[in-house]
Amino acid sequence: MSKKTLDNRSHKEEHLGSSAFITDIVIGMSDGLTVPFALAAGLSGAVQSNAVVITAGIAEIVAGSIAMGLGGYLAGKTEQEHYQSELKREYDEVEFVPDREREEVKLIFAEYGLNELSQNTIAGELSKDKDKWVDFMMKYELGLEKPDVNRARNSAATIGISYIVGGFIPLTAYFFTHTPYQGLMFSALLTIICLFLFGYFKSKVTGQPPLKGALKVTFIGVTAAAAAFLVAKLFNNLF
Amino acid sequence: MSKKTLDNRSHKEEHLGSSAFITDIVIGMSDGLTVPFALAAGLSGAVQSNAVVITAGIAEIVAGSIAMGLGGYLAGKTEQEHYQSELKREYDEVEFVPDREREEVKLIFAEYGLNELSQNTIAGELSKDKDKWVDFMMKYELGLEKPDVNRARNSAATIGISYIVGGFIPLTAYFFTHTPYQGLMFSALLTIICLFLFGYFKSKVTGQPPLKGALKVTFIGVTAAAAAFLVAKLFNNLF
Repeated sequence: MSKKTLDNRSHKEEHLGSSAFITDIVIGMSDGLTVPFALAAGLSGAVQSNAVVITAGIAEIVAGSIAMGLGGYLAGKTEQEHYQSELKREYDEVEFVPDREREEVKLIFAEYGLNELSQNTIAGELSKDKDKWVDFMMKYELGLEKPDVNRARNSAATIGISYIVGGFIPLTAYFFTHTPYQGLMFSALLTIICLFLFGYFKSKVTGQPPLKGALKVTFIGVTAAAAAFLVAKLFNNLF
Repeated sequence: MSKKTLDNRSHKEEHLGSSAFITDIVIGMSDGLTVPFALAAGLSGAVQSNAVVITAGIAEIVAGSIAMGLGGYLAGKTEQEHYQSELKREYDEVEFVPDREREEVKLIFAEYGLNELSQNTIAGELSKDKDKWVDFMMKYELGLEKPDVNRARNSAATIGISYIVGGFIPLTAYFFTHTPYQGLMFSALLTIICLFLFGYFKSKVTGQPPLKGALKVTFIGVTAAAAAFLVAKLFNNLF
């Protein structure tokens, strides 16, 4: 078991290293495959022209990729600012109220059943090096990891591009067909295959059961498309 | 400063308690206000009928709320399964390779400059109670918090409903106007006000500078809408 554990651990760390990038692709493509597909499906039941479906699809892809990409970028920057302001506060606390901070360290370990003596040892040792002490408080008291400065920008680009790539797949069918209904048939066939493959890959990468994951992702896409189709048709008949 | 720190801390904890719900509203409404607004704006430059804009908007709201809500629900369930499988693995490791696990505990504290004696004290004390030991490893080695079982369902509903509420705001303008251009004027006016107020509220709740936050959120929405408008118009002229 020791060997297996070791393998798992080193595999885990490797996985965590690349996972930010993969996670961003998964986030962008998940939504990109689903929402433009469902919007196009919804419109296919309500309008007579492929051009309208494609125009709406493109407008959605532009809107969605910017909202997700730019939104992700600004959220990342906010996270960095938050980390910096908390870091400054921890340094101030370590400087001006060290006794309180030592009590907080002791409290963390009291919760895990360590006795007073061990608590004092840890707090005493930690407080010898202010940088490491602050590091410890950031991670274990506040649960904050140091954000990567390039992460926000790269993440935004990856999510946005993945959304665009995912979103164009369901739309392509409307370019090569004559009516929205024909477009919907080919779009649904193509997108369901892609959702399944994407769900399978996503689950493999994140260590989930791949078949179950593939079915989940496909289910979300098909449900969203069916609901959009029905609601748009209903609304169109009433209007 | 001690008093201020105490206030901040208790305020912080209170904030963390309600923040899951608020975060879900923020996630849903952010995208709900932005994407349907931008889609409607995009179509306003390309089609002649408010009915088409509204139909597309409704289809988008249905698709987006299901993709986000159902997607969020299934992601929450996956997170729970992941936690359970890691929990089982940690219990196995504590049971079958306790020496390795003690070494891992020591390694965590070695990084913070604690001496060998303190490391041994902590590892020895922690390993007296298996439940607390596993708790410790889950949180401090793997960085995993125990997920709330009701959280996935509640989160899905909150995100989905917030998306629907946010999404209907920009659409209302197209019900009461005669042409897409008129609709766009009122929609933009109404949505920009709502984006600004929402951004202000969101920043207040998350402890960010509110004016800066309000401008950020408004900027994302306006950029997405302007880009969707331009691309849809360009595509429509070429087609």
